[in-house]
Amino acid sequence: MRHIIFISKMVWFFYMPLEYKFKAKPYDEVLKSALQAFPQKAAYELVHVSEALGRRVAEDVHAPFDIPRKNIAFYDGYAVRHEDTKGATASNPIKLRVVGLVLKDGEEVGLRVEKGTAAYLSANSPLPEGADAVIREEFTSRQGDYVLVKKEAELYEDVVLRGEDVKKSEVLISRGSVIRPQDQVLLLEIGLTRVKVYREPIIGIASVGDEHLERFEKGIPYPDNYSFLLSSTLRLIGCKTVSLGIFRDDPEEIAELISKNIDYYDALTLIGGASRGMKDYTGMGVEKIGEVIFHGTTLSPGKVSGVCKVNGKPVFIVPGHIGSAASCICNIIVPIISKTYYDGVELLPKVLAKLTTSVEARPESYTFRTVSLEWCNDGLNATPHLRRLGGSTLITILSKAGGFILIPPGVKLSAGEIVKVTLLNPLEAFSWKSS
Amino acid sequence: MRHIIFISKMVWFFYMPLEYKFKAKPYDEVLKSALQAFPQKAAYELVHVSEALGRRVAEDVHAPFDIPRKNIAFYDGYAVRHEDTKGATASNPIKLRVVGLVLKDGEEVGLRVEKGTAAYLSANSPLPEGADAVIREEFTSRQGDYVLVKKEAELYEDVVLRGEDVKKSEVLISRGSVIRPQDQVLLLEIGLTRVKVYREPIIGIASVGDEHLERFEKGIPYPDNYSFLLSSTLRLIGCKTVSLGIFRDDPEEIAELISKNIDYYDALTLIGGASRGMKDYTGMGVEKIGEVIFHGTTLSPGKVSGVCKVNGKPVFIVPGHIGSAASCICNIIVPIISKTYYDGVELLPKVLAKLTTSVEARPESYTFRTVSLEWCNDGLNATPHLRRLGGSTLITILSKAGGFILIPPGVKLSAGEIVKVTLLNPLEAFSWKSS
Repeated sequence: MRHIIFISKMVWFFYMPLEYKFKAKPYDEVLKSALQAFPQKAAYELVHVSEALGRRVAEDVHAPFDIPRKNIAFYDGYAVRHEDTKGATASNPIKLRVVGLVLKDGEEVGLRVEKGTAAYLSANSPLPEGADAVIREEFTSRQGDYVLVKKEAELYEDVVLRGEDVKKSEVLISRGSVIRPQDQVLLLEIGLTRVKVYREPIIGIASVGDEHLERFEKGIPYPDNYSFLLSSTLRLIGCKTVSLGIFRDDPEEIAELISKNIDYYDALTLIGGASRGMKDYTGMGVEKIGEVIFHGTTLSPGKVSGVCKVNGKPVFIVPGHIGSAASCICNIIVPIISKTYYDGVELLPKVLAKLTTSVEARPESYTFRTVSLEWCNDGLNATPHLRRLGGSTLITILSKAGGFILIPPGVKLSAGEIVKVTLLNPLEAFSWKSS
Repeated sequence: MRHIIFISKMVWFFYMPLEYKFKAKPYDEVLKSALQAFPQKAAYELVHVSEALGRRVAEDVHAPFDIPRKNIAFYDGYAVRHEDTKGATASNPIKLRVVGLVLKDGEEVGLRVEKGTAAYLSANSPLPEGADAVIREEFTSRQGDYVLVKKEAELYEDVVLRGEDVKKSEVLISRGSVIRPQDQVLLLEIGLTRVKVYREPIIGIASVGDEHLERFEKGIPYPDNYSFLLSSTLRLIGCKTVSLGIFRDDPEEIAELISKNIDYYDALTLIGGASRGMKDYTGMGVEKIGEVIFHGTTLSPGKVSGVCKVNGKPVFIVPGHIGSAASCICNIIVPIISKTYYDGVELLPKVLAKLTTSVEARPESYTFRTVSLEWCNDGLNATPHLRRLGGSTLITILSKAGGFILIPPGVKLSAGEIVKVTLLNPLEAFSWKSS
């Protein structure tokens, strides 16, 4: 059985150049076409703030009131009318009658600071009516019901004015932001218990390729282990994924897989098989039920990536080699999911880093180079991985990588240049240790 | 009812200086004592690689074999004996007999490259026996069963040697690393389907304070909303959390809360109430059933933080103000959880950044300053938040923050200095956009 497959591969391999209709179109053009082929159709859901950690807000969150809501004290001390302190010094203090105490939670007890009076209050408490300045406790001394003020206060001295931090209707959290712990607190603090977030698209993931079935038959667990690179990356940037299993390099089977599943998912991905004239196999099937937008592009690695449109949804053809798959995920799948299901929000974090060695694109390809990231005293350093190895070797390189750069055809980047590095996923930040 | 609470607070406030036994001990010393008080008792579990995304590996993962496992071709081309190519040039090619084809998956068919022969192979395929160099396809031309070699090859030219990438037993993934998508693929590729990770400690979170109950009685949802800062941060760095509810400022009730729950959790946190002479209230309760390691330290904000030990486990006293709570979480809770349950692995990501403005610690306090992080062409810039505001204002500052710096007492950092910034949580990387 294995022998037959082996022979058939050999035959295929020898004849491939004759049958291979694959043509690489410019990456910038095909990406643009593919982005245009899918309308923005982000969906939204209201989730409870307690469940919103890590989700992306789908609209700007505005301040529903001024923050702070009232003029508040910056320090512990006495709320006064600044006029009453005119001329006060340590040697010539001014005596004011203490009329009460203001509590931090801002509950008022009808306190009013009138001419010649003061009220004790702690930092962040609202100023009582009448008061327009705060004298820090250290510039006072208490004498029973009176306080000696040893310093002149200017108007609003040591007072945070209402709205000084945020004015009503200013944007507190902008659309597309990921909700962090402190954002949960902020949302609840302004009275929001539910928040509108992007619905996470559900992506069906299928592996295609007789070689996966061979591995399966050999008893290798997870014979399509590369699919984890796709499913886990998608999960980390805000998608749900469902594994659809392994399918043969057979156009009928592939067409059936797509047509049976496309209605249940927001997009499908077919990993593997791409380099084996997938256009001929899958393309034929896809063309019966949809459209091949492109298959083959000037992206290196990732040349044999493709995007199809079936029932208005994206079907991605993902190369089976791990480096090519990584390139296809980062440079094709993520941008299209971003535009289609996240209103174009950038889904992978970006950083700026200094190249430690020069690196050059291939003359006719957008070149995907993974980089290691290291924090040094002169900033974040990016060391490109130049070795074009394959199989498990490429996986060790990916495991050493923290991000990537995409270099336009023919462009050479010199050592010392500052480049934009896209992180492979947000977990990369966990591996950072500054020396 | 609310009035009674209010009056009791006023009375407490006026008398507090007399009753307040709170004493701030040096932060560096108390942290050291607290770290020493708890033995390392990390626990481990074997999880399936498919479920391991985001978990921390608990032991170094070694390469079980050389990678690559065999000498492999760097390019598509012909495997040859380098001796056979001596003197070959474009104008004076050497003719070799093609004896077969090697497939990428490394299956061999008894091929052997002997004197005067060559075998076609694609990049990353294993070299057949006898071959010790690869001639790239572009330096050859095929003539039926023969190939013309137009270039001399050196020994191992365009060959990746067995183990050149990773030698057997070298560390592939180091202890404490977070498992990323590419690590899942790597683990499966080397035949590991399960991986030893740190068990996530389960932290019980209680809010303490009559003010929370007041807010609850007023019908405010999530009256202890600050607890999300703690629970969500802990979840993001590898803990499970359980909310235990809201409890009164009452030593008996607090002691009961601790003794009833301590057996079920790896640590307890009590948020709020800390500044109200918690030592007097909770401390009294804790001392009956355990030990107050410290309560009150030279950490600003976060001065009233405390750590107790009950049944050998940490019980954290977390200040109720949001900025102080953030400081206590980052500077006390995270380091102790790291040491106790994660063998000291750093749980929060660290970066280096350039200060945009100078910032100074208080003379006698370790000073916690949140910073905004922004990527500029001269690297990552950190802008400290200097305003000491409170209440919801502080929450907007935390929401603008991406990380923090901890400045030792009396130390002044100047604008332009490179400082180590700890991210508040790993989600911060999501908000990075380089211009």
